[in-house]
Amino acid sequence: MTTVNRQLILRARPKGLIASGDLQLAESPLPELKGGQALARVKYLSIDPTMRVWMAGDSYLPAVVIGEVMRAFGFAEIVESRHPDYKKGDRVTGFTGLQDYIVLDASASQSFQKVPKIPFVSDTVFLGLLGINGLTAFFGMEIAQPKKDETLVVSAAAGATGSIVGQIGKIRGCRVVGIAGTDDKCNWLTKDLGFDAAINYKHPDWKAKLAAAVPNGIDIDFENVGGEIMNTVLGLMNLHGRVALCGLISGYTTEDRGVASLETVLVKRLRVEGFILLDHVSRFMDAATQLGQWKMFGKIKDRETIVEGLEKAPDAINMLFTGGNTGKLIVKV
Amino acid sequence: MTTVNRQLILRARPKGLIASGDLQLAESPLPELKGGQALARVKYLSIDPTMRVWMAGDSYLPAVVIGEVMRAFGFAEIVESRHPDYKKGDRVTGFTGLQDYIVLDASASQSFQKVPKIPFVSDTVFLGLLGINGLTAFFGMEIAQPKKDETLVVSAAAGATGSIVGQIGKIRGCRVVGIAGTDDKCNWLTKDLGFDAAINYKHPDWKAKLAAAVPNGIDIDFENVGGEIMNTVLGLMNLHGRVALCGLISGYTTEDRGVASLETVLVKRLRVEGFILLDHVSRFMDAATQLGQWKMFGKIKDRETIVEGLEKAPDAINMLFTGGNTGKLIVKV
Repeated sequence: MTTVNRQLILRARPKGLIASGDLQLAESPLPELKGGQALARVKYLSIDPTMRVWMAGDSYLPAVVIGEVMRAFGFAEIVESRHPDYKKGDRVTGFTGLQDYIVLDASASQSFQKVPKIPFVSDTVFLGLLGINGLTAFFGMEIAQPKKDETLVVSAAAGATGSIVGQIGKIRGCRVVGIAGTDDKCNWLTKDLGFDAAINYKHPDWKAKLAAAVPNGIDIDFENVGGEIMNTVLGLMNLHGRVALCGLISGYTTEDRGVASLETVLVKRLRVEGFILLDHVSRFMDAATQLGQWKMFGKIKDRETIVEGLEKAPDAINMLFTGGNTGKLIVKV
Repeated sequence: MTTVNRQLILRARPKGLIASGDLQLAESPLPELKGGQALARVKYLSIDPTMRVWMAGDSYLPAVVIGEVMRAFGFAEIVESRHPDYKKGDRVTGFTGLQDYIVLDASASQSFQKVPKIPFVSDTVFLGLLGINGLTAFFGMEIAQPKKDETLVVSAAAGATGSIVGQIGKIRGCRVVGIAGTDDKCNWLTKDLGFDAAINYKHPDWKAKLAAAVPNGIDIDFENVGGEIMNTVLGLMNLHGRVALCGLISGYTTEDRGVASLETVLVKRLRVEGFILLDHVSRFMDAATQLGQWKMFGKIKDRETIVEGLEKAPDAINMLFTGGNTGKLIVKV
């Protein structure tokens, strides 16, 4: 067995996209396990836009410290254990970081969840549909309060979260319109996922097409992007509409800091509510159970883009901001 | 009796403050009353920031049409009646417009409320505490949902709405901090109205003073101003805080269109909700009854700045944006 742990260390806070050298691959020896510890092999890493926020500075979590392993949510399997809660072969999800191995320590304030082996279901489901993205979609839609026959628009609709948001919208009886960045993504949304319409915001006439796709206006904006896309959506919203503010990715790598005209919020009496998944930890199991049922009965489909190799993680994070992935983006370690 | 009606006609949409010529005084003959009509003498005009919005363009109400009498809420007394609902001496509030007289017409879609004569109480109370401002404060505070021991910050705190908002906050058991533009206004808020603190935003160190005045952070922002003041308040808000978005006056006469960083809304999981008084018409009587009780028992004090003369109305509107008034601003016709 190897005695080396490869780790991606944060060396500099990126400006714009992650540049070579911002995250640097380093090797360290695997520590000897002490009593109360377990060693877990990281198998899959969840690649999420919020990682770029963690690299930039303090936000809803403290910034990743320069010189430390980059924070990431991942799936790992216990390979050796002197930990009271885990035995060899147990499988967990939690903040593994961008590395090959993580030491779980009973005396540390780590938060890992044991996850079951589900026949015929890929382990990666615990990172996407039953992980950060499915749960974010689920709790965000509680904030959005969709009602039958309302119109829901979701931006970054072909992403891991947006694609589930739209399908929950269909389950709730909404007219669902997605905004995405390629025709292929738009086709996936309408042909495979049942979205009523999907708009490619890179087409020059996308604003007119969006307006035409929402003949009764927009009641709910599930906002992942911010900036010009959000302002365009707000302009089409109905009185007393709701905005579930989930992400503002247009501002994570650029100077667009997610400003929107509050004048529209006032005049249209909108409710804009920010939310963060970590506030809902106590209800993760309930939500995952519901999401799993929907998947089992074919009401929700998910899709993954898998990138192979820990060393590719920095490029993978950048893919989120250049539109390179469809569905859940995962690094296979 | 006079046969002439003086009217302030909107001639041009203002840029910045209202300039001479934007509103022009004109005289027209009083019409002969037809069956179903009543003539009312306008006695007091409510001067509100939203009038500047009505002059600029369509918003939650259609813009005032160029060449028509400027829209205004006012208090009037019936001087002659062939109207089934009114007799001479009746007193009403509603959209009188900036003019000496208004014809009430049973066949028109006007909305006037008869108001009682209350012993020892000035008629102007129906424009301020029991009118637009008291009602706006009341329904806005329903949206803000103040809880005991929370910290409430209100901007434009010495204005007609802000001063009532803060006092309702005290009734609800909040720590209340006002933001206003002169030391005199701040003194009025703390010494007369019972605000816990008041910050003059024209002092160079006002941001530090505001931070010091909210040792437990801010739970509620009752926002009347927008722009830099709002962004400063948002920066001090607690997780899951609420913003009752009532007005954005910093943007009504300038290019500051009320932009705020949505990043803060997201990271702090804030709820920002715009509201407009006209959505709550069906509950005006309930709210006015509560406000009247509070006033009767000394729990709410109000104050007025009275400007004499219809022709002074344009200057009076400008006073709202230059900080010239304390409490309710009224033109006595």
